[in-house]
Amino acid sequence: MLFKQITIIGVGLIGGSLGLALKKKKNIKTIVGYGRRRGALHKAVTINAIDRYCLTLSKAVKDAELVLLATPVGTFESLCRLIGPHLQPGTIVTDAGSVKGDFVEKLSALLPEDVHFVGGHPIAGREKSGIMAATGVLYKGCRVILTPNIKTNRDALCKVAALWTSVGANVSEADPYDHDRILSFVSHLPHVVAYALMETLMHPCISGLSPVEYSAGGLRDFTRIAASSPEMWRDIFLSNKKSIIESIDTYQETIETIKKKILSDDGEGLVEIFKRANDIREQATQ
Amino acid sequence: MLFKQITIIGVGLIGGSLGLALKKKKNIKTIVGYGRRRGALHKAVTINAIDRYCLTLSKAVKDAELVLLATPVGTFESLCRLIGPHLQPGTIVTDAGSVKGDFVEKLSALLPEDVHFVGGHPIAGREKSGIMAATGVLYKGCRVILTPNIKTNRDALCKVAALWTSVGANVSEADPYDHDRILSFVSHLPHVVAYALMETLMHPCISGLSPVEYSAGGLRDFTRIAASSPEMWRDIFLSNKKSIIESIDTYQETIETIKKKILSDDGEGLVEIFKRANDIREQATQ
Repeated sequence: MLFKQITIIGVGLIGGSLGLALKKKKNIKTIVGYGRRRGALHKAVTINAIDRYCLTLSKAVKDAELVLLATPVGTFESLCRLIGPHLQPGTIVTDAGSVKGDFVEKLSALLPEDVHFVGGHPIAGREKSGIMAATGVLYKGCRVILTPNIKTNRDALCKVAALWTSVGANVSEADPYDHDRILSFVSHLPHVVAYALMETLMHPCISGLSPVEYSAGGLRDFTRIAASSPEMWRDIFLSNKKSIIESIDTYQETIETIKKKILSDDGEGLVEIFKRANDIREQATQ
Repeated sequence: MLFKQITIIGVGLIGGSLGLALKKKKNIKTIVGYGRRRGALHKAVTINAIDRYCLTLSKAVKDAELVLLATPVGTFESLCRLIGPHLQPGTIVTDAGSVKGDFVEKLSALLPEDVHFVGGHPIAGREKSGIMAATGVLYKGCRVILTPNIKTNRDALCKVAALWTSVGANVSEADPYDHDRILSFVSHLPHVVAYALMETLMHPCISGLSPVEYSAGGLRDFTRIAASSPEMWRDIFLSNKKSIIESIDTYQETIETIKKKILSDDGEGLVEIFKRANDIREQATQ
């Protein structure tokens, strides 16, 4: 038994999938869900992602040994303010948010001193969201990055790591700020890029020719990426502003380089870039 | 019987797949293949994509009623110069290239007056290339755009359309220059964007943190796009320069708009853009 009770705040794709996987493992006695929509919480009980739910936040967390924040990152600060006074000493609060950086220190400071915050990020996004998309195998082979800082309680860190490895995830650690820079390049930037591409297709200079009707395979892959939750991505972009702007600027530079090579008929230079991209694909799919 | 003999120049994914599909339909008596590599041509005969092959271009085309150019677009001009003198009057020359624009007039002018050029473009790219990737179902439900100009022979146009519809493709027509603008937005730009993203991950400002090791689903979709043939894309980018630069410039503007919204905390403006992207996805997958 890993924990007697954990509470999952936000029982959607991420929280619901963890619940499903943990219930199968039977290593948590009671999983309590909290959310705003009774329908979704009821559904979560039906599919056995949680044992029961509370619509009152203070009640939902009061006996929890671990609380998982699985709502959009924009809600984390107010949630920590609200739950702090109701937590038992020694409770672990962890999250599944895509942005870390300042959060780790900020959220720790909003919680009582005897409550341990551990930043975590399962890299397991899908284009679908909500409890209906939850699956017990979402974290199998999935990478989870835990982001301790020097103040993080090591026991709490170990327990959060054990929680994720028990559902099949591969856990690694990174500095909170390194995490944000890495994720801004490999996850947030790709979303900016995909959203921008979709928006470009609606530009008045081309929209009259109905380009979308001619979309081929290449474009479909982009539309899949651009189909993620708008509110979630707004929160991520605004919370990880500094790193995202760095990645966008670097990216724009690269686009300029490619553009110059096209304008100057530098075929060899283009092939060099394209071949490097092929190499990266091989690294990424290993 | 659509044609007694057709000749496919370049028996790779595109040419080989057409051969496979036509042989199944049995509506061409003889399909001749031409290429530079005997091994690939031999393979094409073995899998029944062509009936026989020639390593001499003039011999390959001399009895053809229709010649399909299925090599990279960069080779089309010299191919037309070389085959022109060996074609029978009334022969149709068509292509499967991704760029049209000036080509339609240029290639027509390089061929004898009594030979009919019809521009064509099956939108059927895959990340794989070569005869080993060819499949008889590649064109099932695939869109083929034919790009006549005012001088195009209507009979020849009908026959090329019949060739493609016989293998299950949906044929439509577009002006050669409109074709290039549309394709630059829905196909060429997505490739620029994907290649640039891969290149960005190797920028010295981030490469030290090994970002590729943390790649999630979003990035994998991009690496797939960026895995296409470097030489093919070099040719496309250099041949469709004007439209591609237009699409890149429009795209860069859009990225700047998104960047400004992030910098000014304009969450509502971001959500608006992201929601529009979701709408396009629905259009594109209809």
